[in-house]
Amino acid sequence: MDFDLVVKNGILVTASEVLPEGLELGIKDGKIACIGTSLPTSSTTKIIDAEGAYVTPGGIDSHVHLAQKNSPTGDNWETGTRSAIAGGTTTVIAFASQQKADTSLYPVLEDYQEKSVNQTYCDYGFHFILTNPTPEILRDELPVLAEREGITSVKLYMTYELMKLNDREVLRILFACKQLGMTTMIHAESHDMISMIIEGLERNKNTDPYFHAVARPRIAEDEASYRAISLAELADAPMLIVHMSSDVAISHVRDAQTRLLPIHAETCPHYLFLLSEKIKGEPHDHFSGAKHVCSPPLRHDVKDLDALWQSIANGTFTTFSSDHAPSKYDHPGGKRLGMVDGIPRFSKIPNGLPGIETRVALLFGETPACRPAEEARLSLPRFVQLATTNAAKLYGLDGKKGSIAPGYDADLIIWHPGDKGATTITQSNMHHDIDYTPFEGVQVGNWPRYTILRGEVVWDQEKGIVGQKGFGQYLKRGKGQVLVGKTGNVPRGMKPEERQYWL
Amino acid sequence: MDFDLVVKNGILVTASEVLPEGLELGIKDGKIACIGTSLPTSSTTKIIDAEGAYVTPGGIDSHVHLAQKNSPTGDNWETGTRSAIAGGTTTVIAFASQQKADTSLYPVLEDYQEKSVNQTYCDYGFHFILTNPTPEILRDELPVLAEREGITSVKLYMTYELMKLNDREVLRILFACKQLGMTTMIHAESHDMISMIIEGLERNKNTDPYFHAVARPRIAEDEASYRAISLAELADAPMLIVHMSSDVAISHVRDAQTRLLPIHAETCPHYLFLLSEKIKGEPHDHFSGAKHVCSPPLRHDVKDLDALWQSIANGTFTTFSSDHAPSKYDHPGGKRLGMVDGIPRFSKIPNGLPGIETRVALLFGETPACRPAEEARLSLPRFVQLATTNAAKLYGLDGKKGSIAPGYDADLIIWHPGDKGATTITQSNMHHDIDYTPFEGVQVGNWPRYTILRGEVVWDQEKGIVGQKGFGQYLKRGKGQVLVGKTGNVPRGMKPEERQYWL
Amino acid sequence: MDFDLVVKNGILVTASEVLPEGLELGIKDGKIACIGTSLPTSSTTKIIDAEGAYVTPGGIDSHVHLAQKNSPTGDNWETGTRSAIAGGTTTVIAFASQQKADTSLYPVLEDYQEKSVNQTYCDYGFHFILTNPTPEILRDELPVLAEREGITSVKLYMTYELMKLNDREVLRILFACKQLGMTTMIHAESHDMISMIIEGLERNKNTDPYFHAVARPRIAEDEASYRAISLAELADAPMLIVHMSSDVAISHVRDAQTRLLPIHAETCPHYLFLLSEKIKGEPHDHFSGAKHVCSPPLRHDVKDLDALWQSIANGTFTTFSSDHAPSKYDHPGGKRLGMVDGIPRFSKIPNGLPGIETRVALLFGETPACRPAEEARLSLPRFVQLATTNAAKLYGLDGKKGSIAPGYDADLIIWHPGDKGATTITQSNMHHDIDYTPFEGVQVGNWPRYTILRGEVVWDQEKGIVGQKGFGQYLKRGKGQVLVGKTGNVPRGMKPEERQYWL
Amino acid sequence: MDFDLVVKNGILVTASEVLPEGLELGIKDGKIACIGTSLPTSSTTKIIDAEGAYVTPGGIDSHVHLAQKNSPTGDNWETGTRSAIAGGTTTVIAFASQQKADTSLYPVLEDYQEKSVNQTYCDYGFHFILTNPTPEILRDELPVLAEREGITSVKLYMTYELMKLNDREVLRILFACKQLGMTTMIHAESHDMISMIIEGLERNKNTDPYFHAVARPRIAEDEASYRAISLAELADAPMLIVHMSSDVAISHVRDAQTRLLPIHAETCPHYLFLLSEKIKGEPHDHFSGAKHVCSPPLRHDVKDLDALWQSIANGTFTTFSSDHAPSKYDHPGGKRLGMVDGIPRFSKIPNGLPGIETRVALLFGETPACRPAEEARLSLPRFVQLATTNAAKLYGLDGKKGSIAPGYDADLIIWHPGDKGATTITQSNMHHDIDYTPFEGVQVGNWPRYTILRGEVVWDQEKGIVGQKGFGQYLKRGKGQVLVGKTGNVPRGMKPEERQYWL
Repeated sequence: MDFDLVVKNGILVTASEVLPEGLELGIKDGKIACIGTSLPTSSTTKIIDAEGAYVTPGGIDSHVHLAQKNSPTGDNWETGTRSAIAGGTTTVIAFASQQKADTSLYPVLEDYQEKSVNQTYCDYGFHFILTNPTPEILRDELPVLAEREGITSVKLYMTYELMKLNDREVLRILFACKQLGMTTMIHAESHDMISMIIEGLERNKNTDPYFHAVARPRIAEDEASYRAISLAELADAPMLIVHMSSDVAISHVRDAQTRLLPIHAETCPHYLFLLSEKIKGEPHDHFSGAKHVCSPPLRHDVKDLDALWQSIANGTFTTFSSDHAPSKYDHPGGKRLGMVDGIPRFSKIPNGLPGIETRVALLFGETPACRPAEEARLSLPRFVQLATTNAAKLYGLDGKKGSIAPGYDADLIIWHPGDKGATTITQSNMHHDIDYTPFEGVQVGNWPRYTILRGEVVWDQEKGIVGQKGFGQYLKRGKGQVLVGKTGNVPRGMKPEERQYWL
Repeated sequence: MDFDLVVKNGILVTASEVLPEGLELGIKDGKIACIGTSLPTSSTTKIIDAEGAYVTPGGIDSHVHLAQKNSPTGDNWETGTRSAIAGGTTTVIAFASQQKADTSLYPVLEDYQEKSVNQTYCDYGFHFILTNPTPEILRDELPVLAEREGITSVKLYMTYELMKLNDREVLRILFACKQLGMTTMIHAESHDMISMIIEGLERNKNTDPYFHAVARPRIAEDEASYRAISLAELADAPMLIVHMSSDVAISHVRDAQTRLLPIHAETCPHYLFLLSEKIKGEPHDHFSGAKHVCSPPLRHDVKDLDALWQSIANGTFTTFSSDHAPSKYDHPGGKRLGMVDGIPRFSKIPNGLPGIETRVALLFGETPACRPAEEARLSLPRFVQLATTNAAKLYGLDGKKGSIAPGYDADLIIWHPGDKGATTITQSNMHHDIDYTPFEGVQVGNWPRYTILRGEVVWDQEKGIVGQKGFGQYLKRGKGQVLVGKTGNVPRGMKPEERQYWL
Repeated sequence: MDFDLVVKNGILVTASEVLPEGLELGIKDGKIACIGTSLPTSSTTKIIDAEGAYVTPGGIDSHVHLAQKNSPTGDNWETGTRSAIAGGTTTVIAFASQQKADTSLYPVLEDYQEKSVNQTYCDYGFHFILTNPTPEILRDELPVLAEREGITSVKLYMTYELMKLNDREVLRILFACKQLGMTTMIHAESHDMISMIIEGLERNKNTDPYFHAVARPRIAEDEASYRAISLAELADAPMLIVHMSSDVAISHVRDAQTRLLPIHAETCPHYLFLLSEKIKGEPHDHFSGAKHVCSPPLRHDVKDLDALWQSIANGTFTTFSSDHAPSKYDHPGGKRLGMVDGIPRFSKIPNGLPGIETRVALLFGETPACRPAEEARLSLPRFVQLATTNAAKLYGLDGKKGSIAPGYDADLIIWHPGDKGATTITQSNMHHDIDYTPFEGVQVGNWPRYTILRGEVVWDQEKGIVGQKGFGQYLKRGKGQVLVGKTGNVPRGMKPEERQYWL
Repeated sequence: MDFDLVVKNGILVTASEVLPEGLELGIKDGKIACIGTSLPTSSTTKIIDAEGAYVTPGGIDSHVHLAQKNSPTGDNWETGTRSAIAGGTTTVIAFASQQKADTSLYPVLEDYQEKSVNQTYCDYGFHFILTNPTPEILRDELPVLAEREGITSVKLYMTYELMKLNDREVLRILFACKQLGMTTMIHAESHDMISMIIEGLERNKNTDPYFHAVARPRIAEDEASYRAISLAELADAPMLIVHMSSDVAISHVRDAQTRLLPIHAETCPHYLFLLSEKIKGEPHDHFSGAKHVCSPPLRHDVKDLDALWQSIANGTFTTFSSDHAPSKYDHPGGKRLGMVDGIPRFSKIPNGLPGIETRVALLFGETPACRPAEEARLSLPRFVQLATTNAAKLYGLDGKKGSIAPGYDADLIIWHPGDKGATTITQSNMHHDIDYTPFEGVQVGNWPRYTILRGEVVWDQEKGIVGQKGFGQYLKRGKGQVLVGKTGNVPRGMKPEERQYWL
């Protein structure tokens, strides 16, 4: 009962409760040791007075691209994780990414480890992107990644010429992952629909950035999501569909969840706050819309936003991530790649937006902490689930990350009391190495006053970044939980014993 | 940091997490004061070693009938709450019930208070059953009940000749409750369908107990549930549909929840474990089926059970209660009322089953604590939500009841470690004042080893009841939370401003 | 092969086909005797040259109020049927209407027979409105009406203080009608919702005509429609829900039809063409909105219209009727009843619109006969189904009315060739005894050039009404067909044998 | 008015009506010239007395494989069409089939024309199977096929190694066909699911014929159907999904139809009458199950049959075809190909069943003509729609084939009066060149007494085949109708103008 740090006077929020006022957190050796009242302190105990503010678990951003080969002007581990802690995120899970030519994942992993080790301001782990799932990789390497390296999730693409897998490959991975207890993330858009439309747009010389949104209509996401769910159902394997943006696609997830299929869903801040109008750019500079080019694209209508908020509130979404995958805008190797010989070519614009720093505050701003209850989009416990807890559980970090409870790492956000944290998002306040934020001018009701990682204050809004590069630790993750539904389901019309014949 | 009781060596389960092993609960003055490790103890500190067993919050049974006028052979407050604690339930919310002739609720309440005060083994509160919602009661008395007496929920019936309200009355109550922040519970079965079928059954002399199940087909519940949801949608008022048993009805709830309507749903153990076959009674004694007569009736098919378990797991059900509403079987004022001049008359059998004692263990038995993960019907956190936390939130007891967290009452169930608690339910082990249990012979994987109420052990499976009559306290409840959806919705096709014209 | 009349040179349209050009209709003794080419004619044969125009069956308007006690300023049989033939309708089914005090239907029927006999320009039959379904009426009188009088359909109201039946009464009627092979029509709006809203509107002094639309929101129709379908499902009895206007309600019908329940649906021209905006009246004369007061009310949004057109096209609607139920506008006993002491009182405005004359042309105008194929709302055969054939089948007139085939009455509309019939609807052209048309100014692509009833031209657009009062005949109808689904279904969760126990 | 043939005394059934008794058909020059009564006859007029039996249009079997390269032991044009007329089918549409290596369709067509000309007993047309849709074929050849050859429909496969197209190719064809007004038929099963399962079954040595049903689970059809509908929705092109067998897949069609997408659906007799049990073969001879190997496979459960019958009755299915695609059973080049070195190998068994002769009678047997009304599965007009009319309209034969109306070819089935036609299906009565029928032993309530093609009796059940080889004519078809929904829809979330940017 001798604490390194005591956080007093906060209102603790967990994934299920807003706890009574007056509780104190006793922190020792980087972990939460005790929750109680009137905790004993000594001369060596640091004390933080939350002044009545909310205290929530540190954010987990489970969909982040750092130092990716295909995004040379994006953030690296240092700048990306610096940006993360400034926004309340204490853990990121980024991607190690196989190229089609890589016949083994081990060298790829080594490369990513090398780039990240001692570079990060926050804790981190890897998902592995598979683009060439050879039998050897599935049989020999995935188990090693899971058990030795703690990489217990993979990501697949159904689109992008250089990344996409066909349905057979997706199935193979699902079966392999199911056996290993790994989680499969999938980018679900119909490649064939999109590539055909792009061909037509280019033929018709419709190549302004805005046509990116035309090229990837909602139906491409709807169809691919239904297909992905069907493949997971056949394989009886858990899946998470990443960055969902279409209400029809989400209704397929909802239906699957109703039937207890283990289908999880993720969305991102830009699909909740921004519309395709943004991609039109400035009246005098259409190309500036390139800043808002990401896939799936921003959608057209306020009703699209509302439908997503509905799925935030009704529990359909499991996780909420930034999909931080930026490129510098005013850089010849960044978004400017989409300007070819003076002509805008949307299909050449690097996809992706920065968002690692703004994610948590944008969501917190929609809770009753920041707005009248009747205007709130989600409850505080639901905020905690989406910003951190569910990702911890789904990706095998539970027991260590994602909750305020004794035994867990002392990763915390201490917010400003009352409305003192109201903030307008602007690029000059960002800590990423990108030259814009897509949320420029958006007002949020609060901002993290302190970010605490394993008991150390790493962000103090008055002082700025106070953590150290290299303080972040690599996270060997365990098997993820199935948060939605269960395995052991039988597709409709199939006899229960049937899968045994061919497995 | 001086505790009256320390519970060591348990695995704490909350509504969102199974916490790491090794945590200790420090209890002081009946409340949880601290969660940590190596808590200090003194000579006066009592210590309970959970031996590695699960520790969950004490159960809240939010649908219980005690000392009801229309059930003279049922349990009274003493016997009912004695049975409750023996099964891990530390709080019950029972009913104060208006009769049609009661033009004021105050005398009714006094009567119920008199019967209950100093009689209970566990803490308790009241819902108020309204059968005659006069303008005066709605305008003048409900606010007093809510604010002065802490009775923040009412229950309505759409069926039963002596209880039923018409849609207009239901609407009036919904509007009144919405303004007061009260929750409306509703028994949803179509009275007109049922009464017409009963008439036909009696005309055809089909009066064995089994015909009770025929008289109340699922479609009666389906229609009334849809209607109830529509009334709540028009009123923009939160509602809980009690004891749901039909998957079509539940699908209406699910649809409403998807649209963020604040529609909550409850089910009960008997709908999850028992089939209408039971109502046929013994081959040589059809009347013994009367033991299983309740409304809605037990359903016909294993598929009905599966559909309910699905809704347990996918989150559609908010609460799980016993609907403890028993009558003695072998008693002329009990179930035997259904034997008229030697002829069974199902319509005269008092409705309802005992279940206050078996509820918690039946549900716990379906978690991974008691069965292989792949056969579990629900997770441990989901068990906690259904057995206790959600009822606490919905009925205004949060912050005090329903969670394991500092500041909350120290209401706990300590289970047996491993499989040591496996038990077969049988009448001779029950503590109610009823002469049978409908779950006779059902095996459950565990049983509460200790029940702790406000820091006092009140049930010790070795010693039996160790609590005292009168230790139970009356609970003045606060306003309930909306756990599902939100208020502020506009019915489809209505303009947002439209309600203002007539409210 | 000696014809009284030959129609040449028309394009015949049936409920399934647009027949090849060049066919001729040979008519003898009021019936179609032959369809062929080069039919023989004699000196006594009258010949009509359709000049290439479409020829469709004469319209059947199966929902018409004439000479109703509760609408003293409405059309009587003479003026109503005169208006009908001027718009292409050759058969109407109007209502004989029981008052609550009527304990026998026979005198009611005699009264209606007396008013109608020798008064009509077109053929006619009766539905019976039941407002007090005594056991004697159901048991003794309905069979007589069906068999002796050829009245094989009844209509019920779930709303209106003086007409409404409760669910039990609806069930009783459904069971009685099922046994007799009678069809039940039902006006489905929740009386309790509506009456509560009206009370609130009046309390708040919101009594302009427009508030009629506020008083009857779509959810009132949605709920009542679901309930009506459930009652019909329990009874296993065919039903038609009249004048549907809400897409949610229609989706319930669609779901029922998918499951083969015998649930038919009707809509009316005003729900397809007019919006609630109309009820606001003129800027300087809000009360003039009273002209557009009907129930269900006109809906708010173009999307509502689109949803109805969708159900026209996808087959969900079975019939399309005028619900001609007018009152004179500028008459103290008509719509002006809604002006009380100089204050508009929407709840006092007689409900209903005139439309018997405009119905057929409005629908025909949306077929490919009148607009480019890609803008057509329905096909020509679907027009025929909705304007005439389905009503004939559903109401027991098939084999005699509703089709162009030998053996059928020679009831025909001969349209104008090409676009020569384009017309703007205006009151001065109407033949009803009402002082306005709600469709004033609506343009339609064609108008009946000739209306032919049993081989006699009764409407010639050049000459006007050429038929005779009293030429219309009373139609003894046979049992109706089930056009949608089938009987013999078992409600979900019910065992197939179960109904036998109580029927 | 001088007829070659008069059919008297029949009850004529059209796609919308059962016409009054006593009508006569006057036939001249192979066409129906007149429908009437007491038609004049001369000495040269042949008269057929139907004796009160039903007379329906001759059947159109729009999905038939004759003389296909990949089915060398199947029927050729002579034997196939002989079998057709013996079962009441007067028109077949069979397939001209491109092989992947065929870079032009013209030689393929010539080949098929050569094989069929002067060989057929009934009229016939071609659909074209596309397996290699080169830009040249789509741009240059399809218009020629449509306009010059009257081939206005194509068929695609999503499965089968040698036939399957990817989604991009399907889209290309849909766009091309939309512009030409051609109809696209599609075989929708997920190739990737199926091929993976087959691999697993073979690895596990599960190769008996029955495993064919395991290899192609319903979910493979469900997913591919959803995908096909999505592709058609993007292209705004009409589509027919062939031989549907799964209720989930059909529900996708139903949803699409509700939204007015032009998605048509077909099913076949074997999915309505036979279960996968059949594929198990005889107890002592599992390989005999090969007789029942077709794709999609027969399904497992009576509920599957019921779901299909429901979609027959509720209108979801547009056409009903045989998918006659047989191979001889006891022939080394037929089904025996699936016995490899004495070991059954389901994946080597030629797919397909004979059924051209039994199709019409099997469906007619489920109408009220053959069974009590309450047991009938469909009405007589619905039978006519499915057996003939809808195929005529969808495939551009309307005005000539598929109806009983003047101007149409006199293609008729005259059934036996009353129950005189009851028949048990057995191989010895079949007229195909196949050595079994999958419907062996099935009882049907009637069988065509006479089949009449263009006014000539070609089948007389007493005399057998009385038509002549070579009497059948090639049908140049026109553009098909959109029978369901309409074109001009915009996918959800897409702006109306959006398609213009890329088309």
